[in-house]
Amino acid sequence: MAAPARTLEVDLGERSYPIYIGEDLIADPALYRPHVAASQVMIVSNETVAPLYLARVKAALEGFRVAEVVLPDGEIYKDLVTWNRIFDALLEHRFGRDCTLVALGGGVIGDMAGFAAACYQRGVDFIQVPTTLLAQVDSSVGGKTGVNHAAGKNMIGAFHQPRAVIADTSTLSTLPERELAAGLAEVVKYGLIRDADFFDWIEQHRLQLLARDAAALSEAVERSCLSKAEIVAADERESGQRALLNLGHTFGHAIETGAGYGNWLHGEAVAAGMVMAAEMSHRLGWLDADATARIASLLRGFDLPIDPPPLSGADGWLELMAVDKKVQNGVIRLVLLRAIGHAVVSSDFAVDQLRDAIAAAIGEAGERPVG
Amino acid sequence: MAAPARTLEVDLGERSYPIYIGEDLIADPALYRPHVAASQVMIVSNETVAPLYLARVKAALEGFRVAEVVLPDGEIYKDLVTWNRIFDALLEHRFGRDCTLVALGGGVIGDMAGFAAACYQRGVDFIQVPTTLLAQVDSSVGGKTGVNHAAGKNMIGAFHQPRAVIADTSTLSTLPERELAAGLAEVVKYGLIRDADFFDWIEQHRLQLLARDAAALSEAVERSCLSKAEIVAADERESGQRALLNLGHTFGHAIETGAGYGNWLHGEAVAAGMVMAAEMSHRLGWLDADATARIASLLRGFDLPIDPPPLSGADGWLELMAVDKKVQNGVIRLVLLRAIGHAVVSSDFAVDQLRDAIAAAIGEAGERPVG
Repeated sequence: MAAPARTLEVDLGERSYPIYIGEDLIADPALYRPHVAASQVMIVSNETVAPLYLARVKAALEGFRVAEVVLPDGEIYKDLVTWNRIFDALLEHRFGRDCTLVALGGGVIGDMAGFAAACYQRGVDFIQVPTTLLAQVDSSVGGKTGVNHAAGKNMIGAFHQPRAVIADTSTLSTLPERELAAGLAEVVKYGLIRDADFFDWIEQHRLQLLARDAAALSEAVERSCLSKAEIVAADERESGQRALLNLGHTFGHAIETGAGYGNWLHGEAVAAGMVMAAEMSHRLGWLDADATARIASLLRGFDLPIDPPPLSGADGWLELMAVDKKVQNGVIRLVLLRAIGHAVVSSDFAVDQLRDAIAAAIGEAGERPVG
Repeated sequence: MAAPARTLEVDLGERSYPIYIGEDLIADPALYRPHVAASQVMIVSNETVAPLYLARVKAALEGFRVAEVVLPDGEIYKDLVTWNRIFDALLEHRFGRDCTLVALGGGVIGDMAGFAAACYQRGVDFIQVPTTLLAQVDSSVGGKTGVNHAAGKNMIGAFHQPRAVIADTSTLSTLPERELAAGLAEVVKYGLIRDADFFDWIEQHRLQLLARDAAALSEAVERSCLSKAEIVAADERESGQRALLNLGHTFGHAIETGAGYGNWLHGEAVAAGMVMAAEMSHRLGWLDADATARIASLLRGFDLPIDPPPLSGADGWLELMAVDKKVQNGVIRLVLLRAIGHAVVSSDFAVDQLRDAIAAAIGEAGERPVG
């Protein structure tokens, strides 16, 4: 018998929803049933996750009219063409406006299924069942959904909140090591943004996390989700502090786009991006050398790649960063650090300073990164 | 000098917006400027409308950073592939989250540009500049946006309200006759749904409308928009009375899908669909024979096709209707008439009664339509 789920609430008025966190939740009918409005349920999964968990989710949904669509696995398939296959399945099964989608997989599946739920017949319900650490601590909570465009990541999407998130930490046992590390990068992010104590805790529990100790993983998921739930509740559509969650992401998106989708995992790109943000913050005199070094050291300790790729040089980097969604009126805004546990959104720097920081990080012109 | 625009307000709290109606509005900078938040404006138009009006809209937007994307014309292009060309253009020009889209064209352009605005970077502003009667009286107001799927019309979309609607009745002078008639079908719809006086007025002004008398067209657009604005304000997301606007649409969508997109204009399919809805209402004993005949007669008087196509017989019709968005829990709900000016949403009939009504309408089994 599994321990009962811990429940966090994302407080968004009429759109509020629970996040269930714990072991062996994925097959528990009681977690799904309150959140399925009618009889039709479409499970959206991928070729890697479906063989592992689809049967158990279907068993939990016994009594509903359940169908599934299994997509190819990988960020390179997060596009409009693959997305349309979800609609093919929904229409083939004659699913109506009162159906519910279940996203069973990592962040790519969650984003695509959530975006399909946002747009099918102008909006239907969905439930997130994240099976990667990255999806459990980040992408499944908060309602950001979407697909990539060849010219930019997540450029096509919607805000659409799930009815519930079922984060079963047992599913992390099947996660490849590289994906575990990518998820830990996002865990570190919460410490950096607003919780210095949590950053300390992560440093102290680095080996347990890498060894997938159940208690350590549950604690990491819960504290991360709590941070995210609070931030999202305060700023659902990212007009203010929610932008802090993008720490490392403007740099990271440039890596993902410039290196080609799928070559860097999202969390890997965010890890390298956070180190770049820390170095930029240090150059501006905002973050001290010791903190800058601690950040790089912790991420390296999770076997994350923290040296950014050169791409086509610092100017190419700036080009890629200019298409990021954080650009307003042509001005690049970055999430930077005043200290560990204190992130700010800022455009209070010269483009040349940014260019120099990038050049140093990629080893251009003989410079070496700080830290 | 053009007459000043008449302004109606769609009252949706923070998402409220004006509808400007009148002659020679399309080139008036004062109607655009208050609704463009930043500097970047992307005009989305098609190959038919752009040569007629694009230059004038660009002139009105002088001083902004304006770009355009011109799509092929026609309902058959209202799909994800063509839709993606809008994102190609936005990203090619590095447009940010604070850009504004301008939809210049008929309902297809309005739906596609509006849906692109809903999804670009998870939502940007847009302005509707409808150049067909159908778009002016219906699709440009209310925030329904989307594209078609091969298996069903408007199956992929979003609710996304424009910042303003600029309905320039002068643009109707270039409208092909068939499209004028298709728009008049939607005008008749407002009379049927909730305004018997307006229905009488349309009957009395039939010839002026067909002759494109400026005063008659303005009156028709204004009264239609007033009805639509009130209905949308009361029920933005179609949980209740907004569904009345779908009078004739469940039948009409079956025609459009079954006959292949683009063979029937939307308004033509709605005209035939409204006659079918009237006949069904008459069969149920709700609508008297005289009213049923008046409806068919008025629509025929606008040269609209009121005899539905046989498609693959009554059973094929039911199949097509079953994928319509108005289906809930597998039950077909129709908008039917209690009287001219009094529509209701109902599933209070047997499928056999519906089947018989369709069979009669398409002349199957020797039956002939009532009315």
